[in-house]
Amino acid sequence: MRTLKLSKAFTLVEPGPVVLVTTHDGDRANIMTVSWTMVLDFTPTFAITTGEWNYSFRALRKHRECVVAIPTVDLLDTVIGIGTCSGKDTDKFARFKLTALPSRLIKPPLIKECLANIECRVVDIVKRHDIVVLQAVAACIDASRKERRTVHAAGDGTFIVDGRRIDRRKAMASRLPPGI
Amino acid sequence: MRTLKLSKAFTLVEPGPVVLVTTHDGDRANIMTVSWTMVLDFTPTFAITTGEWNYSFRALRKHRECVVAIPTVDLLDTVIGIGTCSGKDTDKFARFKLTALPSRLIKPPLIKECLANIECRVVDIVKRHDIVVLQAVAACIDASRKERRTVHAAGDGTFIVDGRRIDRRKAMASRLPPGI
Repeated sequence: MRTLKLSKAFTLVEPGPVVLVTTHDGDRANIMTVSWTMVLDFTPTFAITTGEWNYSFRALRKHRECVVAIPTVDLLDTVIGIGTCSGKDTDKFARFKLTALPSRLIKPPLIKECLANIECRVVDIVKRHDIVVLQAVAACIDASRKERRTVHAAGDGTFIVDGRRIDRRKAMASRLPPGI
Repeated sequence: MRTLKLSKAFTLVEPGPVVLVTTHDGDRANIMTVSWTMVLDFTPTFAITTGEWNYSFRALRKHRECVVAIPTVDLLDTVIGIGTCSGKDTDKFARFKLTALPSRLIKPPLIKECLANIECRVVDIVKRHDIVVLQAVAACIDASRKERRTVHAAGDGTFIVDGRRIDRRKAMASRLPPGI
């Protein structure tokens, strides 16, 4: 994993892939699958929808740190497995044979098998809408990875894989943040 | 356009496509391009990131209604055009040759050329994060449309087109809302 400029980290979340979110409750690490995410600014700040119904939420609220990891299509069944069991009674790193790597600035681990990992601090919880606001503090990417296609949850049990990429950098130039 | 069950509308936003958002300021309709969106629940409630920097925000804040329209890849350059000019000095329906159809319950119009349109009311504005919370009140879909692939903004001026769809309804069954 090589360091990724923080100013580029939002480009991993903006297209709307399903992500994995790691937390640490003081004793052990856990992972949840999240498909309800949103970019809030380029710094980058992200929002995720989560609440009491997710076991990870307790650790997130208490320790206020998490890693947003970006899985690719080869990990789809792992992503679904993680999203359909609970950290309450499952060590998800062991069960899904994932490798926890130390983060640079926070306690929740990176997931080695993912394309990229974004270390985040919780800056706010908007309780009335179950929105958790995250500020990214470090990011890294596995530049050697061949499979880079992410997947998008349609919400009905089907998933859309990334297709071709269309370049409109020129047309978009006036609206892009500097240095992107 | 045929009616779409409200309980299915979130499946159009969850995969993270770039959307068009129409508003009406009392005098005329406007459109903005938004790629920072998030599902908040299945009812469905959505969040979008917008604020003073978008001309449409004034109409949205004052009249508290909008349509979230889902464009497909054939409309990509229209979507970019809409996102790189302002309703302050442009009639976007005229300039981009889009057809405004009357909504069922609100004043901002549907966009006929889009795959689907979701009529929404603003239920909250979380000012400190520039988050606008929308409650969908009606939805419709153009079932006759052949092109159904949406596009995902990567944030760097490139766009990812929907690729193949993978069916994991069975594995996901325990986590899907009823009747989806």
